[in-house]
Amino acid sequence: MPTIAVDAMGGDQGPDAVVKGVAQVSLETDIESLLVGDEARIQAVLEGVPYNPEHIAILACRDAIGMAETPREAVKRRDTSLVVGVRAVADGRAAAMVSAGNTGACVLACAQHFRLVPGVRRAALASVYPRQTEYAGQDPLALLLDVGATVRCEASELVQFALMGNAYARRISKVPSPRIGLLNMGTEDGKGGDVLAEAHRRLRDLPGIHFVGNLEGNDLVRGKADVIVCEGLLGNVALKLLEGVSEVLADVTRSAADSRFAWRLGIRLLAGGIERLQALTDYRQYGGAPILGFRELFLKCHGRSTASAVANAVKVAAKAVRDRVPDEVADAVATVR
Amino acid sequence: MPTIAVDAMGGDQGPDAVVKGVAQVSLETDIESLLVGDEARIQAVLEGVPYNPEHIAILACRDAIGMAETPREAVKRRDTSLVVGVRAVADGRAAAMVSAGNTGACVLACAQHFRLVPGVRRAALASVYPRQTEYAGQDPLALLLDVGATVRCEASELVQFALMGNAYARRISKVPSPRIGLLNMGTEDGKGGDVLAEAHRRLRDLPGIHFVGNLEGNDLVRGKADVIVCEGLLGNVALKLLEGVSEVLADVTRSAADSRFAWRLGIRLLAGGIERLQALTDYRQYGGAPILGFRELFLKCHGRSTASAVANAVKVAAKAVRDRVPDEVADAVATVR
Repeated sequence: MPTIAVDAMGGDQGPDAVVKGVAQVSLETDIESLLVGDEARIQAVLEGVPYNPEHIAILACRDAIGMAETPREAVKRRDTSLVVGVRAVADGRAAAMVSAGNTGACVLACAQHFRLVPGVRRAALASVYPRQTEYAGQDPLALLLDVGATVRCEASELVQFALMGNAYARRISKVPSPRIGLLNMGTEDGKGGDVLAEAHRRLRDLPGIHFVGNLEGNDLVRGKADVIVCEGLLGNVALKLLEGVSEVLADVTRSAADSRFAWRLGIRLLAGGIERLQALTDYRQYGGAPILGFRELFLKCHGRSTASAVANAVKVAAKAVRDRVPDEVADAVATVR
Repeated sequence: MPTIAVDAMGGDQGPDAVVKGVAQVSLETDIESLLVGDEARIQAVLEGVPYNPEHIAILACRDAIGMAETPREAVKRRDTSLVVGVRAVADGRAAAMVSAGNTGACVLACAQHFRLVPGVRRAALASVYPRQTEYAGQDPLALLLDVGATVRCEASELVQFALMGNAYARRISKVPSPRIGLLNMGTEDGKGGDVLAEAHRRLRDLPGIHFVGNLEGNDLVRGKADVIVCEGLLGNVALKLLEGVSEVLADVTRSAADSRFAWRLGIRLLAGGIERLQALTDYRQYGGAPILGFRELFLKCHGRSTASAVANAVKVAAKAVRDRVPDEVADAVATVR
């Protein structure tokens, strides 16, 4: 069973959700977790929950990176739970890293301590998000990349993102032939300027992937593609816009519930429907999303992750290790060099 | 009273919604509407509704551009309702144009027949969309530009979009000092690569506008800014993503209403809350959004516009003419040349 390093200090709720998630994993699986962080605080959380001590070790360090810190400065400190954990993976002490911490710092720590897969030009931060499905059995989650490791991209980089996302989705979502889309401002082949037109042409001509063409913003929430590729600026704005809509929905539902008896009753009756609405935009219930392109694996969880979201991410990381996702990425990229 | 040319044939519902909207305007205001399109079909709709014939004229033409036509080819045909209407404005026969037709064709027709305001580098297609307000009395609509007239932009173009949006919002939304935001992938000043960092610097140092800094995707649905500036690729994806979420909400609500009695009852009780949810993302109830940067005015309505959305757009166009919005844009742009 692989050892998964887990940043115990990352996330909006500090060690609480993370350590509880790892405790849960220790009871349900044989995965070895290496909790990285403040030993006393980790122990304090572990004392309050059931867990299997045979599957949990602690790698103690004293520092931690705050969610609002400037990433570039923060990753210079070498005794933070994030940097210590990433280095443990780079040194082979663990097979993958999971963190719910500062996203920018996670990406930078990987860039500094991990090695790019040979041939990969740039790593991508992916995000897993829920969307409506179009056929029975389709995975309710889609993979969007890049959502912020890059700003602008060349066509060749977008093509590599497609190959990396394809490899990940095949292994993790168990979709034998994931549908790949290119996020654009129109569905016609030549849309979006030179870079997107060239990326479209190259993806269309690439054997071994199921390219479904350009997707527009409204297609993101539909099941038209399982992997959607774009530059980081575009992916980041799209992802955060989905989060913003989710927050507004939650606000409106909450204020309706507070304000009127009829609404309260309505909400109770509508509970199933409201849950379906919120599931489409609620990131808290989903596990991690990978940083792809490195030989080493990193799963980034949302800052608001609950214990079960962290547990899910640790399991996904272990599965990605067992299924040799980085090798799959390397093989895919090698075919188009 | 200004004459407003209206593309009678544009929009998903053909002449029906458009002509009914104009009929409504003819009864409520002194605005002169010039309906451009197939005379027999326009007359057929007018016969079914009350209207004031003193305020409606028809400019007959035989051709029309379909919603799914390729814009570049379509605008070559000179007898279409769109091109005839735009030329009527360029020739001074009408003061502004309103269309719910093919968006790409609208932008191209303006580029071919209108003249850029001196000093303006590129025109921008704006979109008006609903968002949560942050204080009492704040306009529930925000202006996002560009949403598709451009793909990539230089910093100087983004600065001009801010000035144009500012001028429009001051006149139309009656916000004396609209808050201007730059859509980006982080709130820090230097985020988003060279172009966005430079645009940020220039907007921050610009006197006479209320620049609130970088906004992220989730801020789009909040009241943080009244005018949000971005390149066309980014704005187009963001806008269509909002539309996609709206469609999914409508689907889920509808399927809930169909499927279970408890849900049906819940929806009836929740009607006010559901309406508030949908109002946040429903474009059909809002009027037009301007194409800014030309000496002539063009208001683009959503393809799914209802009669009252069209009526609203005609009134906004008349107001923009009376308030001399293009002159305001010209003055604003001249100050930073």
